Amino acid sequence: MKLYDCSMAPNPRRARIFIAEKGLDIPRHEVSILDGENLAPAYLAINPWGTLPALELDDGTVITEAPCIFRYLEALHPEPNLLGRDPLEAARIEAWERFAEMNGMAAIGEFFRNQTDAFTDRALPGYAGVKTVPALVERGRQRVAFFHRQLEKRLGESPYLGGARFSAADITALCAVDFGHAVGLPIPADNAHTLRWHADVSARPGSAN
Amino acid sequence: MKLYDCSMAPNPRRARIFIAEKGLDIPRHEVSILDGENLAPAYLAINPWGTLPALELDDGTVITEAPCIFRYLEALHPEPNLLGRDPLEAARIEAWERFAEMNGMAAIGEFFRNQTDAFTDRALPGYAGVKTVPALVERGRQRVAFFHRQLEKRLGESPYLGGARFSAADITALCAVDFGHAVGLPIPADNAHTLRWHADVSARPGSAN
Repeated sequence: MKLYDCSMAPNPRRARIFIAEKGLDIPRHEVSILDGENLAPAYLAINPWGTLPALELDDGTVITEAPCIFRYLEALHPEPNLLGRDPLEAARIEAWERFAEMNGMAAIGEFFRNQTDAFTDRALPGYAGVKTVPALVERGRQRVAFFHRQLEKRLGESPYLGGARFSAADITALCAVDFGHAVGLPIPADNAHTLRWHADVSARPGSAN
Repeated sequence: MKLYDCSMAPNPRRARIFIAEKGLDIPRHEVSILDGENLAPAYLAINPWGTLPALELDDGTVITEAPCIFRYLEALHPEPNLLGRDPLEAARIEAWERFAEMNGMAAIGEFFRNQTDAFTDRALPGYAGVKTVPALVERGRQRVAFFHRQLEKRLGESPYLGGARFSAADITALCAVDFGHAVGLPIPADNAHTLRWHADVSARPGSAN
């Protein structure tokens, strides 16, 4: 196996942490999103969607999308369980994983890309020719505020996003929250539950990835 | 069980078709997105994210998000299988299901909501107060063109999106494609593979939902 990775990008980090939590060691091949290498022909031949991460199997089959890589690796290496032990826990974990992706990761990306010169012509991940729209900087900020409010509410009720234990939902939320911090949208200082959770999940060895 | 539904909306339709394909009969409770009922306190008490569909279990537990409802129902009712019989098939189905959702459904929604008066103040599903941005109408159109190109390429190689047989990926793509048709972004007339696939999946009894 080989992981197509981009060491500075938040979505590939989801896969790196998941792999580390599973105790696996998968070689990585770096693809620079900043330099647009993910939209160049060589990488589009591997993943026509131009997104990272992607996992290449030994027979050349490519699995795209962080959550699909999660599910594939969990099927092959069931322990430690990160996607849920029963249908209800699995549904909760997936719902929060998606929430962190769509309302966290994507919203922070909207805030960041639409004000960043390097992304003038690729305001969305995996697309060439999508122009930045200045109004989306504020929209991104507004969506991230919603994300942080929902996170704080949930983490006031539950130690982790999926419930009583660490799961893939926490991995994706951690990657989103740290991405927000890096681009100027940190956890609000009053969000004590989120700060407690963030210190906890950040201390896990896999989170150093 | 009870499905919170909106009969005219494309995301709840995914759940309705999935339920029909499973041969299940789950009572539905209509929530009008057009009237903003999904963002009113009564529904936010059920699903704080304000999105549809949502599945309420008999003990009051709520499962949000179409793909999470898919996975929960598939665990309870494994046949007919719609999410994959082995890890690789499951990864392929999920990747195309996500593609249809993020590059189809969301892109068509972007095109549609940002030019529609009823959504002036809720340009994104599940959010109150997100203003429309006129530039996103064209961006949505551009993204949908990419979606249709990728769909056509895939369906030239494979009878269904996930591979040799019908799956949840086809359900979500059908809902996206029909939503596109309804708002003025139909399958391009030259996309013969997509048109063949669309006729095939539309003829399934469950697709009448």
